[in-house]
Amino acid sequence: MDFKNRDIISIRDFSRQEIDYLFQISDSMEPLTKRSNETLKGKILGTLFFEPSTRTRLSFESAMLRLGGRVIGFDEPHGTSLEKGENLADTIRVVESYSDVIVVRHPLEGAARLAAEFARIPVINAGSGAEEHPTQALLDLYTMKRELGRVDGLSIGIVGDLRYGRTTHSLAYALSLYNVKLRLISPDLLKMRREVLESVRRKIDAKETSDLGAIIPELDVIYMTRIQKERFADLAEYEKVKSFYKLTKSELRDAKDSLIVLHPLPRVDEIDYEVDGTPYAKYFMQVKYGLLLRMALLSLVMGAIG
Amino acid sequence: MDFKNRDIISIRDFSRQEIDYLFQISDSMEPLTKRSNETLKGKILGTLFFEPSTRTRLSFESAMLRLGGRVIGFDEPHGTSLEKGENLADTIRVVESYSDVIVVRHPLEGAARLAAEFARIPVINAGSGAEEHPTQALLDLYTMKRELGRVDGLSIGIVGDLRYGRTTHSLAYALSLYNVKLRLISPDLLKMRREVLESVRRKIDAKETSDLGAIIPELDVIYMTRIQKERFADLAEYEKVKSFYKLTKSELRDAKDSLIVLHPLPRVDEIDYEVDGTPYAKYFMQVKYGLLLRMALLSLVMGAIG
Amino acid sequence: MDFKNRDIISIRDFSRQEIDYLFQISDSMEPLTKRSNETLKGKILGTLFFEPSTRTRLSFESAMLRLGGRVIGFDEPHGTSLEKGENLADTIRVVESYSDVIVVRHPLEGAARLAAEFARIPVINAGSGAEEHPTQALLDLYTMKRELGRVDGLSIGIVGDLRYGRTTHSLAYALSLYNVKLRLISPDLLKMRREVLESVRRKIDAKETSDLGAIIPELDVIYMTRIQKERFADLAEYEKVKSFYKLTKSELRDAKDSLIVLHPLPRVDEIDYEVDGTPYAKYFMQVKYGLLLRMALLSLVMGAIG
Repeated sequence: MDFKNRDIISIRDFSRQEIDYLFQISDSMEPLTKRSNETLKGKILGTLFFEPSTRTRLSFESAMLRLGGRVIGFDEPHGTSLEKGENLADTIRVVESYSDVIVVRHPLEGAARLAAEFARIPVINAGSGAEEHPTQALLDLYTMKRELGRVDGLSIGIVGDLRYGRTTHSLAYALSLYNVKLRLISPDLLKMRREVLESVRRKIDAKETSDLGAIIPELDVIYMTRIQKERFADLAEYEKVKSFYKLTKSELRDAKDSLIVLHPLPRVDEIDYEVDGTPYAKYFMQVKYGLLLRMALLSLVMGAIG
Repeated sequence: MDFKNRDIISIRDFSRQEIDYLFQISDSMEPLTKRSNETLKGKILGTLFFEPSTRTRLSFESAMLRLGGRVIGFDEPHGTSLEKGENLADTIRVVESYSDVIVVRHPLEGAARLAAEFARIPVINAGSGAEEHPTQALLDLYTMKRELGRVDGLSIGIVGDLRYGRTTHSLAYALSLYNVKLRLISPDLLKMRREVLESVRRKIDAKETSDLGAIIPELDVIYMTRIQKERFADLAEYEKVKSFYKLTKSELRDAKDSLIVLHPLPRVDEIDYEVDGTPYAKYFMQVKYGLLLRMALLSLVMGAIG
Repeated sequence: MDFKNRDIISIRDFSRQEIDYLFQISDSMEPLTKRSNETLKGKILGTLFFEPSTRTRLSFESAMLRLGGRVIGFDEPHGTSLEKGENLADTIRVVESYSDVIVVRHPLEGAARLAAEFARIPVINAGSGAEEHPTQALLDLYTMKRELGRVDGLSIGIVGDLRYGRTTHSLAYALSLYNVKLRLISPDLLKMRREVLESVRRKIDAKETSDLGAIIPELDVIYMTRIQKERFADLAEYEKVKSFYKLTKSELRDAKDSLIVLHPLPRVDEIDYEVDGTPYAKYFMQVKYGLLLRMALLSLVMGAIG
């Protein structure tokens, strides 16, 4: 399995074997978070966030620093060359002179793929448009693997904004590589994109519903998402659906004991704070697993291991 | 004296013995600013500035880097998860997965204490609300100790905005642990908060006045502060008091030879630039001592020394 | 040749011998971009960008990190002490306590010189006002040297905004130390500043024209620049000249085989994208050479080599 110099653009570029191998490497990263190491000593990560995302940026930065590497970058387009009218290809060809690997987040679909085409160093997509967020999907799966011991055989409900939420698209594609039951739970306005649904249904059992409560008892994983105001062109639409789902402790009454609740974060009010104290809540563990997964990815594409 | 894993939230959590110990460790940091060292190698500081403060942020970052550590963080709420509606507790529980110690600055009183309650790693308060700025108070005292050899026995005038300036509150509390005379010099509109004054008066001789000139000859320390426009809800009030005090060279005519003038910086026009060239001016030395003090704090709470 | 502790403020402070020496050191930096090294281990660069410039900031940061150093700083005035009314001299005297070398960019002419006067550590000018950008001029010359083997004897056309573009002023001064023919190509509204032209003409053959096409066959170097909207007080003036020059592949039909096309970047539409694929295009190589040159400068002023 050779990840060296590979671009990480879409979850659809991965085979199941590759994902399983990546999880194995992620496991081996855990001791490295505790002690100083020089796996990526002298290497520089360039973080190009054309759209702000503190959480994802800090996760990649921490992953790089934990491996002994260093970081440069920017986290908002204001004041960058972009604002002066530069195109993405030029920005990439400049930054690749300053760094050894690039992480890019961009509001437009296809931007990460374009960046990878121009860069001679590896590019990792940290979210592009409403379409793809592959490292989030990988860490979501990795959390299931770590917390439940397996992905095959699980019944997984993805809840909330399945139309604009790029996380849910990448996750659905990733899950379709495994033998799972997928339940897509959303208000009508925010149903899963047709092309994603069709692609996924060719491989696994995927059903749509808007009733979260009725389906909870059969689920092994509830994956909650935020209704993202910033993705709506029409705020009136947003107002209609913004508080459609709110997971409370009492709603989890009939859940399986082994149920885990995940969330890509940040949450607003989709998960009641009282859920935090239950054994179901694994959304903060997701953050830790995400760090390990990104450490693994950086190490692999830089050729430091594997 | 055990500082390991301790949160640094309020100056009121410190005993005099702890402060003296901290100063001793700060002294020992001086050689480490000159040569590369690995005291905190492999450790990551997360700087969460929900309110901008370049000066304080750079001081903590430099302290961490001087000790061989690394830094991640953000320095304005724009573009962070906060803007997406996330609460502080969630942000803290995410960032603690990425770092080994957190420095937080927040516009709301109580925010740093809340952060410390949720974090399992040490949290240092770099200013919260109008109430507390403990590391500033500590470095102010440390400057007196370094420049005058002691704190006990000094006569100290705190000048300017004693109502909104969090620095002055933390400093008054800190001084009340020593045997000092405190003079609180402000326009009527900006008098020291009652609860601070009452608490301090139980322990030391503290008097209020609005006449700086009359009191200069008896002072060992003049602590000037900026009237902070951003703390006034009513700009008309600000206009009335903004240039109330302006320390000039001629006003220092009758000062003791050993007088030192301090200022938490940034200054606007409270201290005339001609004072910079006099031996009284120690506000830039304060910056250096602050670096040593923050290096000491980081080393101690991380358990690297002490 | 002693660069230790020297401020790098204006290209006019350099002799030809110094520039040639600097290029020699820049050559020696190339292997250091490929492997971890500790040339500046334990040293901190403070980057003070009072005016945003992602490209220049990342170049200096990468240069410092490649040499094993570390970086602190800010990249926009918003939220800094400046906004609170602090003057530049105070900011400098604070940041020099936190770092070992300062890189400053500022919208006002003379700002970098002022910073250098107050700082006891070396200051490097990364662009001040519309007047000076010495490291850009040095890397432009260095690119000519690397790509064409020499600077003497070349015929060089500088094209675009010669009135507001600080890059063009610094470059013209730098070229006047060599035996070159200088062609200044601009619309009438954006002619080279008189004081620069007069100074340069005392030393070398410099002619003005507005016709780029006619002059291409005789040039060894075409140095394109962007018409910078942000430098125009009057937007109507900007509209008149913004697309005055656009270098296309067909326009280069009669160019010398050895011609090189340079650009300080970012470009908007002054150079057609189809030129990128020609052997003339060296503007992305410029970025690489700029990194080497800034590594050399940082190493020299810090006394790590030379």
